[in-house]
Amino acid sequence: MPEATPIRLLHFEDAGPDGEKSDVVATEEPLEIRVEGRPLAVVMRTPGHDRELAAGFLLTEGVIKSAKDLFDITMCVDAGNAGKGNAVDVALAHPGSFDFEKLSRHVFTSSSCGICGTASIDAVLKRRKPLSDDVRVSAEVLLSLPKKLTKAQPTFKSTGGLHACALFDAEGNLLDVREDIGRHNALDKLVGAALLARRTPLHGHIVLLSGRASFEMMQKAHAGGIAVVAAISAPSSLAVEFARESGQTFAGFVRGRSMNVYAGAERIVKGR
Amino acid sequence: MPEATPIRLLHFEDAGPDGEKSDVVATEEPLEIRVEGRPLAVVMRTPGHDRELAAGFLLTEGVIKSAKDLFDITMCVDAGNAGKGNAVDVALAHPGSFDFEKLSRHVFTSSSCGICGTASIDAVLKRRKPLSDDVRVSAEVLLSLPKKLTKAQPTFKSTGGLHACALFDAEGNLLDVREDIGRHNALDKLVGAALLARRTPLHGHIVLLSGRASFEMMQKAHAGGIAVVAAISAPSSLAVEFARESGQTFAGFVRGRSMNVYAGAERIVKGR
Repeated sequence: MPEATPIRLLHFEDAGPDGEKSDVVATEEPLEIRVEGRPLAVVMRTPGHDRELAAGFLLTEGVIKSAKDLFDITMCVDAGNAGKGNAVDVALAHPGSFDFEKLSRHVFTSSSCGICGTASIDAVLKRRKPLSDDVRVSAEVLLSLPKKLTKAQPTFKSTGGLHACALFDAEGNLLDVREDIGRHNALDKLVGAALLARRTPLHGHIVLLSGRASFEMMQKAHAGGIAVVAAISAPSSLAVEFARESGQTFAGFVRGRSMNVYAGAERIVKGR
Repeated sequence: MPEATPIRLLHFEDAGPDGEKSDVVATEEPLEIRVEGRPLAVVMRTPGHDRELAAGFLLTEGVIKSAKDLFDITMCVDAGNAGKGNAVDVALAHPGSFDFEKLSRHVFTSSSCGICGTASIDAVLKRRKPLSDDVRVSAEVLLSLPKKLTKAQPTFKSTGGLHACALFDAEGNLLDVREDIGRHNALDKLVGAALLARRTPLHGHIVLLSGRASFEMMQKAHAGGIAVVAAISAPSSLAVEFARESGQTFAGFVRGRSMNVYAGAERIVKGR
């Protein structure tokens, strides 16, 4: 299980050492994403589904527009970290139109992982077209999603250290789930899997986030074409603002029998 | 309270709308960090303590080495997002030695916020010297920290959406606490506050993280000179590896009467 790393630790109980124990922790390793052989970004991620991560990252960061822009994604086997399978190379369908300098700057500036270049929020918001998706989702379906995610999240149980994103259809059927140490990676893997299966844009779908929802998560869901976003935990102010401006439906604190709807309530229908 | 933004939402209870409500969510806004007038990075952060954030960011990302490298940090008042107080400019003590191209590339590559340039983990690990700090901390003190943090974290209570970092002395006295939508920002603000007060490197101190501990958090604590890191939640594999290689003491799952010690147990003494 590459998602979890076995580890020895010293357990303390009641302020005294209680003996050495074996445990597992969530695996975190760097992945270098290359485009046409040139390094574009390094993502700190949990290994696994790396081709999906690269595909999703390129889509949600706006580097590619659809699956048609991809030719192939291969794991690199050269030296260093890459030798451990920590690099992927993306071959583009039209490498001639590839402007590395522009791309590099673009990813740098548009990423909202916490650090990016000189993008202003206005510029990022303007770049996104409002989503039009006339899907309807019942409130009962939204409330049922967290339990389905919990059942489908094996590594979190053992490590307590992974975020998850799950994709559902409008009837609440679980289609796919991805876990990662970084919440943005979990979403990129989910969207990337759909992209590689030629199922993007994901109109008519719901994504559930295991934790909090930031601007970045809303933006990535939007880039994947997902109009309905539900989060088990709290939203940020900019996540709410983005959802309202981009035409997304956004529910937070989806817990037990209640939830808060911050945007797009017209897509939520009462009952089942 | 700039850390929280008032918001209107539609509350759902038992699969039906339960009326509009007012609530507050954690504020998220971009901050542009400029050095000598040139944009270096944009951080998605919770407003407040922005000068500290800039100072801490520059230190923990290795752009400056100590408070001596800083001349002044001022809030910018020009147009756009900056007009809302969303930009800070850092004047350096020796601007002549400032190589912007190199710096820009450096921050890009060394950041471990999830996305960075072409840094390999080996390179990042090598850059750090092992910490030597002969501080001793009692296990009882470590177990007492989470309660002290909870008492000192006002915005989390109202929004459920903020991470916190708290600085303690070796006797467990709370010295400072910072909250932010990004856990890395909370730590940068904490370290930045110490830097501006000329108290870095923070030898003899403990930092407590409200959530999970990733590689990035250990690395930033290390850059601030903090040898003892405690986290309420789970560590990642690379956080443990980094702590062991860098000479840090690292405890996770510090909850109730127990904790797991992953590295540097020799600094933890039994009892009080």
